[in-house]
Amino acid sequence: MEVRVKILFTSICHTDLSAWQGENEAQRAYPRILGHEASGIVESVGEGVTDMKEGDHVVPIFNGECGDCIYCKREKTNMCERSGVNPFKTVMVNDGKSRFSTKDGKPIFHFLNTSTFSEYTVLESACVVKVEPEVPLKKMTLLSCGVSTGVGAAWNTADVKAGSTVAVFGLGAVGLAVAEGARARGASRIIGVDINPNKFVKARAMGITDTINPTDQEKPANEVIREMTGGGVDYSFECAGNLDVLREAFLSSHEGWGLTVVLGIHPTPRMLPLHPMELFTGRIIVASVFGGFKGKTQLPHFARECMKGVVNLDEFITHELPFEKINDAFQLLTDGKSLRCLLHF
Amino acid sequence: MEVRVKILFTSICHTDLSAWQGENEAQRAYPRILGHEASGIVESVGEGVTDMKEGDHVVPIFNGECGDCIYCKREKTNMCERSGVNPFKTVMVNDGKSRFSTKDGKPIFHFLNTSTFSEYTVLESACVVKVEPEVPLKKMTLLSCGVSTGVGAAWNTADVKAGSTVAVFGLGAVGLAVAEGARARGASRIIGVDINPNKFVKARAMGITDTINPTDQEKPANEVIREMTGGGVDYSFECAGNLDVLREAFLSSHEGWGLTVVLGIHPTPRMLPLHPMELFTGRIIVASVFGGFKGKTQLPHFARECMKGVVNLDEFITHELPFEKINDAFQLLTDGKSLRCLLHF
Repeated sequence: MEVRVKILFTSICHTDLSAWQGENEAQRAYPRILGHEASGIVESVGEGVTDMKEGDHVVPIFNGECGDCIYCKREKTNMCERSGVNPFKTVMVNDGKSRFSTKDGKPIFHFLNTSTFSEYTVLESACVVKVEPEVPLKKMTLLSCGVSTGVGAAWNTADVKAGSTVAVFGLGAVGLAVAEGARARGASRIIGVDINPNKFVKARAMGITDTINPTDQEKPANEVIREMTGGGVDYSFECAGNLDVLREAFLSSHEGWGLTVVLGIHPTPRMLPLHPMELFTGRIIVASVFGGFKGKTQLPHFARECMKGVVNLDEFITHELPFEKINDAFQLLTDGKSLRCLLHF
Repeated sequence: MEVRVKILFTSICHTDLSAWQGENEAQRAYPRILGHEASGIVESVGEGVTDMKEGDHVVPIFNGECGDCIYCKREKTNMCERSGVNPFKTVMVNDGKSRFSTKDGKPIFHFLNTSTFSEYTVLESACVVKVEPEVPLKKMTLLSCGVSTGVGAAWNTADVKAGSTVAVFGLGAVGLAVAEGARARGASRIIGVDINPNKFVKARAMGITDTINPTDQEKPANEVIREMTGGGVDYSFECAGNLDVLREAFLSSHEGWGLTVVLGIHPTPRMLPLHPMELFTGRIIVASVFGGFKGKTQLPHFARECMKGVVNLDEFITHELPFEKINDAFQLLTDGKSLRCLLHF
């Protein structure tokens, strides 16, 4: 039930950056091959794999779908008991061993079920999605993590309705994918919030209708948004990985029905900065993993939707570099200059 | 738009107790007439009231429904901008004055839109629900707060499905109303959790299938429940007003789809004891006010359902006393001996 994939393209998202920098002590395991947003071609398949064969175009997914566990059999969750996202997992589930090793035979650990910063990688078949060969594989790289996470949060987790109002906190690739998903669903107003005003030009070209830089405001962003929208937005999305931002996102949604979706990762000892009685305002807060997509079941359809132009993928690829320049790509991300820098093998 | 009601029956719930004891500093306003769970007969109606007349049987509701505001016009919330629940409100919305006064003309403040510890009270018509005259008014008292809150949390907020599993934390009247609502919906297992084992006899007679006394357990209640249910319940309900219990309720629900409904009031400076990453387990936590019922629209139908026997009201009335013995009724509640003590005028 394993697949060896020749990686053609990989990109970088913040989770790679924080794993590289060891922000979360508990997740440290070295040596390790990072990388989880990619696309490639099946090199070979192991025993039991029947849905893929050599030469198939595929997209790795860090949050797998085994199809057999209680979660996979349930409609409303994309968790997976066997191959779901697990930052502490460093080896294959079949035998508890790694498929990578150093020249002298010592194991190199896996990362997020994928380890795509590598010419070849081995994945559980639950973590490999086959896409049609006529679809440009380069663009499909985006569906491996960031774009699926953002668009799916708008479509699956929040179920954004036409005519509704949206606020997106944090205008990186995931935040802009949320905006793109909300735009595709017909949201009437999509307010982008970021402390880096350089992001607003791109954001406005990608469906953001209003922008707020909290450092320019005398009031907290939530008050500005509530004034702009007559009480708050229908949906707010936290894509910054910051608890103060999370609280702003929560309060910027409308009492009675506002929904806040948390996408940011919060490696902090702090608890949720919400008072229990604040839940009684009728606001709801939920988190979204991989945009709520069941990867193997739903990503092929999403890929076709993207190719039809329902979602515009082109704007997300801001840079392309050979894989050897990966450190430059990390720097572009750190500096907030790139959405996605595609690395070519 | 006001209605004067002759109160026939009133009962006591914990919100009266905490208001009396001044647990929440910000809500103190004396002199004040407490009481909010009651039933009575319309004595007279003010200008503009067209849906009620003298002699109608009515139930006061602390969470009104004006029918005109943005919340009332929206399907999925029972908030109301004009007459919704507001513990800080002490006067009528029309003129900002009280309808009660002392012998020497000083105002006596209103409480929770209702003030039912009184032979007569005046309410905004948004806070008065007409029920059919053939329905026993005494039983309808229960629909004024506790039973509607509990049953509605199971039906409207959680939407409990047949065959599902449920845990109820806190087996007072509200908790047992949750259990009764879950039983009526066909829940297969309803686990009751309380530190007072005297409550278990009544609970088992009212649909609770399993009981847990956390003080008898070596493990936290959430671990016991997860072991009992193969990973956790589908729905958990926090009816204790205690943040440690809230956390137990949250963790006792199943990863991926578990829903925790908060009904308890938490007058504490503490924030939610949940880590932001715990939301990524797919568990959801929401609060429920008045069981999500839109009072004027939905309570008459609920009353008919109760009379058909869908929900059994009889078990909730454990004591009856003349109104003069109200302090005895408070003592019964404080001692955990009564579910509802009905006070007769």
